[in-house]
Amino acid sequence: MPDRILRAMDMPTQDHRGPGFAALGLRALEGIKTIFKCAGPVIIYPSSGTGAWEAALVNALSPGDKCVMVETGHFASLWANLAKKFDLVPEVIETDWRRGADANLLEDRLRRDAGHEIKAVCVVHNETSTGCTSQIAEIRKAIDAASHPALLMVDTISGLASADFRFDEWGVDVAISGSQKGLMLPPGLSFNAVSEKAIGASEASTTAKSYWAWGEMIAANKTGYFPYTPGTNMLYGLVEAIHMLHEEGLDNVFARHRRHGEATRRAVRTWGLEVQCEVAEEYSPVLTAVRVPDGHNADELRSVILKNFDMSLGNGLSKVQGKLFRIGHLGDFNDLMLAATLSGIEMGLDLAEVPHQSGGVACALDYLKSTAGKTEHAAAAE
Amino acid sequence: MPDRILRAMDMPTQDHRGPGFAALGLRALEGIKTIFKCAGPVIIYPSSGTGAWEAALVNALSPGDKCVMVETGHFASLWANLAKKFDLVPEVIETDWRRGADANLLEDRLRRDAGHEIKAVCVVHNETSTGCTSQIAEIRKAIDAASHPALLMVDTISGLASADFRFDEWGVDVAISGSQKGLMLPPGLSFNAVSEKAIGASEASTTAKSYWAWGEMIAANKTGYFPYTPGTNMLYGLVEAIHMLHEEGLDNVFARHRRHGEATRRAVRTWGLEVQCEVAEEYSPVLTAVRVPDGHNADELRSVILKNFDMSLGNGLSKVQGKLFRIGHLGDFNDLMLAATLSGIEMGLDLAEVPHQSGGVACALDYLKSTAGKTEHAAAAE
Repeated sequence: MPDRILRAMDMPTQDHRGPGFAALGLRALEGIKTIFKCAGPVIIYPSSGTGAWEAALVNALSPGDKCVMVETGHFASLWANLAKKFDLVPEVIETDWRRGADANLLEDRLRRDAGHEIKAVCVVHNETSTGCTSQIAEIRKAIDAASHPALLMVDTISGLASADFRFDEWGVDVAISGSQKGLMLPPGLSFNAVSEKAIGASEASTTAKSYWAWGEMIAANKTGYFPYTPGTNMLYGLVEAIHMLHEEGLDNVFARHRRHGEATRRAVRTWGLEVQCEVAEEYSPVLTAVRVPDGHNADELRSVILKNFDMSLGNGLSKVQGKLFRIGHLGDFNDLMLAATLSGIEMGLDLAEVPHQSGGVACALDYLKSTAGKTEHAAAAE
Repeated sequence: MPDRILRAMDMPTQDHRGPGFAALGLRALEGIKTIFKCAGPVIIYPSSGTGAWEAALVNALSPGDKCVMVETGHFASLWANLAKKFDLVPEVIETDWRRGADANLLEDRLRRDAGHEIKAVCVVHNETSTGCTSQIAEIRKAIDAASHPALLMVDTISGLASADFRFDEWGVDVAISGSQKGLMLPPGLSFNAVSEKAIGASEASTTAKSYWAWGEMIAANKTGYFPYTPGTNMLYGLVEAIHMLHEEGLDNVFARHRRHGEATRRAVRTWGLEVQCEVAEEYSPVLTAVRVPDGHNADELRSVILKNFDMSLGNGLSKVQGKLFRIGHLGDFNDLMLAATLSGIEMGLDLAEVPHQSGGVACALDYLKSTAGKTEHAAAAE
């Protein structure tokens, strides 16, 4: 997390009903639209991302509504479980957790839903548990090709502000995000970007709600205020984060993360290990999940690395537990942080006696060196 | 807000799934119990206080459940509106907004509920809109006197850590609070302290819930972790705030606020104005609401004070709008801050041509001076 953001938050809390608050509120509310790339409202909740998942479902849908949810990994599966708690009827399309959502399968499923019983298609943009992204523009095309009226709901909690996201252009109806990933803030704010169609659906929703209700938020936000106490100090940080992202340029931010993803994969391949994501177009720019060879335990490797080098890597969640570890390269991350990360892993592989070829770090450095200062070019060449 | 708390929060966010997190989680979870004075669990939500209101209702009650809610002011009335959104059936006991909840009325109502249809009694401990407290121990006695099994739910959002609160001793079943009042933090954390009886009720509740669900929280919290991303940096601040409160001593904190309340009321009476709260035992130590004479508008006075002295006073909400203004004396507040506040008001009364006697500030200073350094004694003498 950048110190600039922490410093921006390190200020007295101002009165959220006071006359000076509106300017802050409007800066945050307008600014976040430039990150989602939408013209319509983005609702900002004082909550973590799990709350924004719930918000999307309880506003746009009603008990008994069917929705198609693609289980691209652990987080997609948690979202489907959450839907059941509100008496929604999720139809889960499974994957092998090594790719994003399959637009063709979705199109086929929607074509067979002649009665339009399916009210929403729910997809995770960047699946944090696997390092696979879903191609949201393709999902939109599939829905349109099937001439299906279902809402397109996208969880971009770990994608937003790290991977390109285009709410309006891609025809997303509800996008869910959180503060603690690409926005480089502490956890505590979450977001629902909403389309006119989604707002229309929310007006017909019969699900009981109050804290998450879009209507009161949208009404109060028009003047820069909130219907209940907002996360004021987090809003200070959000305004600073948006400023930083535009200073660097969103395209440069995305290219930086893609380039770090490529450098990471080059190291992984040199080690002779496998990247969890099998589809090149769906490699996550946010993180890379790496499989350890059969007969070895990724958690033992992680523990050796933590013990020796004080670096905590992400673990494999639920059905990939012990099978993979995750290398994050999101947010405020630069070449030398990546060099350090990969160095810790290469030494750890050796100490934990995981069979591998050395030279991964050297290979990644070669790539970083040859593309240094050429962020945009390197990204275009991928 | 104390700088010490802001500084404590001004730190990198640590991984909430990492091995070092449990120590922080447990410090926060155990520490907050010493503030609620309870032995059982306190649930910490990444949300504002409104979320914790919702959490209390959706966990402990089911659609169709009747609850008695005492409308001691604006916030009590918002809570009752919230209950309706979840198909609860609040029976509202109205007041004139100049006192706390009447234990005798409650006892009478509960005695008449022979069938025990009433599932909960909901009371606001410190009503921020009026400066009246409710005597929670008396409410408990009323419920017991009626031999009624209703849960006692208490909103102490603005009371906790400023006014004495004794969850276990007073037999509260669910207490609701937030971070941004007596705990001196920014907004963004909220709390549900829960009794065994409340947990039992939650297991029978049929209200749809996920984010607010107590069960998963209590289970995960046992080891210091959370089922979803917690407000990590806010937890840093919470641990520091709890530390500060115990350094001063909770009883000293409460006495300090009571003393400032008394000084404020002496100033108000010298001005010849009326305190909104009419019951001496129910004066709020957190804030004092002051009525302006008929024919004068409190909001005009507030605006004169804001313009000339850059001080923003609380306004009268809903049915007392324009009729009163509110003087906060909670949190990190000392004698000279109160002197400054009262000075701004006394000058403002003159500039806004609100009829009053001068000398209020002098009278408050006399009281502060004569009780200086004798916090505990002064408190005992009240």
